[in-house]
Amino acid sequence: MNQNHNSATAAPLVHGGDWAGYAEEYGSQPLDFSANVSPLGVPDGIKQAIAAAAETADRYPDPLCRALCREIAAHEQVLPSNVLCGNGAADLIFRAVWAKKPKNALITAPTFAEYEAALVSCGCQVEYHILTEEKGFCLDETFLKAITPNVDMVFLCEPNNPTGIASPRELLLRIAQKCADCGALLMLDECFGDFLENGAEHTLKNAMEQFPNLVILKAFTKLYAMAGVRLGYALSSNQALLDEMQQTGQPWAVSSLAQAAGMAALQETAYVKKVRQMISQERPWLKQQLEQLGLKVLPGQANYLLFYCTTPLIQPLRQKGVLLRSCSNYHGLSEHWYRTAVRTHEENVRLIQALNEVIG
Amino acid sequence: MNQNHNSATAAPLVHGGDWAGYAEEYGSQPLDFSANVSPLGVPDGIKQAIAAAAETADRYPDPLCRALCREIAAHEQVLPSNVLCGNGAADLIFRAVWAKKPKNALITAPTFAEYEAALVSCGCQVEYHILTEEKGFCLDETFLKAITPNVDMVFLCEPNNPTGIASPRELLLRIAQKCADCGALLMLDECFGDFLENGAEHTLKNAMEQFPNLVILKAFTKLYAMAGVRLGYALSSNQALLDEMQQTGQPWAVSSLAQAAGMAALQETAYVKKVRQMISQERPWLKQQLEQLGLKVLPGQANYLLFYCTTPLIQPLRQKGVLLRSCSNYHGLSEHWYRTAVRTHEENVRLIQALNEVIG
Repeated sequence: MNQNHNSATAAPLVHGGDWAGYAEEYGSQPLDFSANVSPLGVPDGIKQAIAAAAETADRYPDPLCRALCREIAAHEQVLPSNVLCGNGAADLIFRAVWAKKPKNALITAPTFAEYEAALVSCGCQVEYHILTEEKGFCLDETFLKAITPNVDMVFLCEPNNPTGIASPRELLLRIAQKCADCGALLMLDECFGDFLENGAEHTLKNAMEQFPNLVILKAFTKLYAMAGVRLGYALSSNQALLDEMQQTGQPWAVSSLAQAAGMAALQETAYVKKVRQMISQERPWLKQQLEQLGLKVLPGQANYLLFYCTTPLIQPLRQKGVLLRSCSNYHGLSEHWYRTAVRTHEENVRLIQALNEVIG
Repeated sequence: MNQNHNSATAAPLVHGGDWAGYAEEYGSQPLDFSANVSPLGVPDGIKQAIAAAAETADRYPDPLCRALCREIAAHEQVLPSNVLCGNGAADLIFRAVWAKKPKNALITAPTFAEYEAALVSCGCQVEYHILTEEKGFCLDETFLKAITPNVDMVFLCEPNNPTGIASPRELLLRIAQKCADCGALLMLDECFGDFLENGAEHTLKNAMEQFPNLVILKAFTKLYAMAGVRLGYALSSNQALLDEMQQTGQPWAVSSLAQAAGMAALQETAYVKKVRQMISQERPWLKQQLEQLGLKVLPGQANYLLFYCTTPLIQPLRQKGVLLRSCSNYHGLSEHWYRTAVRTHEENVRLIQALNEVIG
């Protein structure tokens, strides 16, 4: 699921967002629909905070991210002791897995690849609960049956990546309860939750006290357009577990630049409003345009859309300077599935034009 | 060895460099001798590179650090495929341990705490080779006997942290050979190697081809005063091993800010010359001053000194705004050992004055 390092024999990158690979090949910058980040760029306040933090970057970062945890806690309306910061949410995925060393884990397919990568790296047996196209890739009650006392850890992505489908909160609560009954840890990845229309109602954040077996993952990456900075966090009422996660890995995972950027990001309320509005407007437009091209598009609710196309798209679009995410390496998806980010209207128009040229 | 996360019951931080804890307690910035970084601050070129990289930090970082690996390779005179970058050298310590999952490992005592932390986190049995005060905390041939076919991984720090003692290169080569004979991986941490007078002769970098079981760790942290940025790298001729390390952990560990900072750092040849000259001048002066205070000081060769003092120093110095590193939590050292960074002359004078007030 991960990449080889930079050897001559390196396998092609499987994740989206490989602008560097494009730039090396073409000598120019692509229009990147393969990574799901805010299309409005890094907010000025965050840029300024990073530049200011560079002045004192000779110091080690605060390993406990004390000031940032307090700010996140205030923002999320939880206790500072419920917050653990990481070098992106992906860091926290690996920390949780290595801290708990599950023998058996349950994940859906398709879903974000790093759950499996982390589980496999610790020798865990991974069971896949296949989400089928017939059911619109929706999670349903059959997932409850897959959670057995044999399962140590469950990963769920809400809304799911790459489908954009969110499950009913009621079902998620029953899953958390079934996990509790079975002694399983539920890792609930809400990294795209802030793009949902009803994100505040959908999150299980306020069920944290009820479920000490619940860890919610969030990131600054997407909403604040800071994928390059690396900053994510875990929320849980289980302080012992967060302590274990902190101790399983280096103490200085979160750079002082990222800590400063995170503090600044939480002030960017106008930016967030603007991004959410734009995605909310553009997503239905882009979906409709893709459908007019004869493509089947899932009713995703995040800042990306999953669609089906039998014409090969990656290379032809790449030659036109447009990056799309092939989903061929996702468990449960064929090479005909593609994920596209939702970007600005002008950029979305360019994507549709390019697709029209390739398909038409 | 690591910290609790920011809960009310958090254990005190065991590593140096906790300026944030000081600032929260005293509302001001300390004079920090507890972290071993260049005292000349972040070079302007690095600050500018970070600020420039913030402009495009909405993109994911290049997971393969392609451009940076090429620059490091040119700087170190190795192949780009011999380089793997990490989120600080500490990230690479955990990656190596988790990739190889050693059952038995050998480390010296005292040494840098993160080797043990990483090994313990993967359930490894850790054997300590005690470096004794009688032998000046020097590594000698008895270490060769401790490397048996039972040992899967060996960590060595050259020069050692916190002693500053470097071993004869000849002995290090015999250790690498014994590790090869026993099927053990030798993790050679040369993070402070650039502070040695004869660093270029001491490194085992040019023995990499001969020893595929050798991984050399280096960091930008100390020499370039970028501890807050997080950037380290591993050098090895063993590409399969570097691939495994890349795959054991998230793909985006190194931020785009750190990658830009690293590229800029390698241009800072005048800065490096200045830092090395200063440390080279100040270290003997500081050692002599400490000795004049009646303290026993090891003949360290890096940018820090280990000394012995029966008067408790940490709290009295802290109240004077000076941070020192207590070595009480190092295996093999009592609470009477302290490590101090070597800083600018003016700062070193202030340290000696403060110590004089406490001891005198």
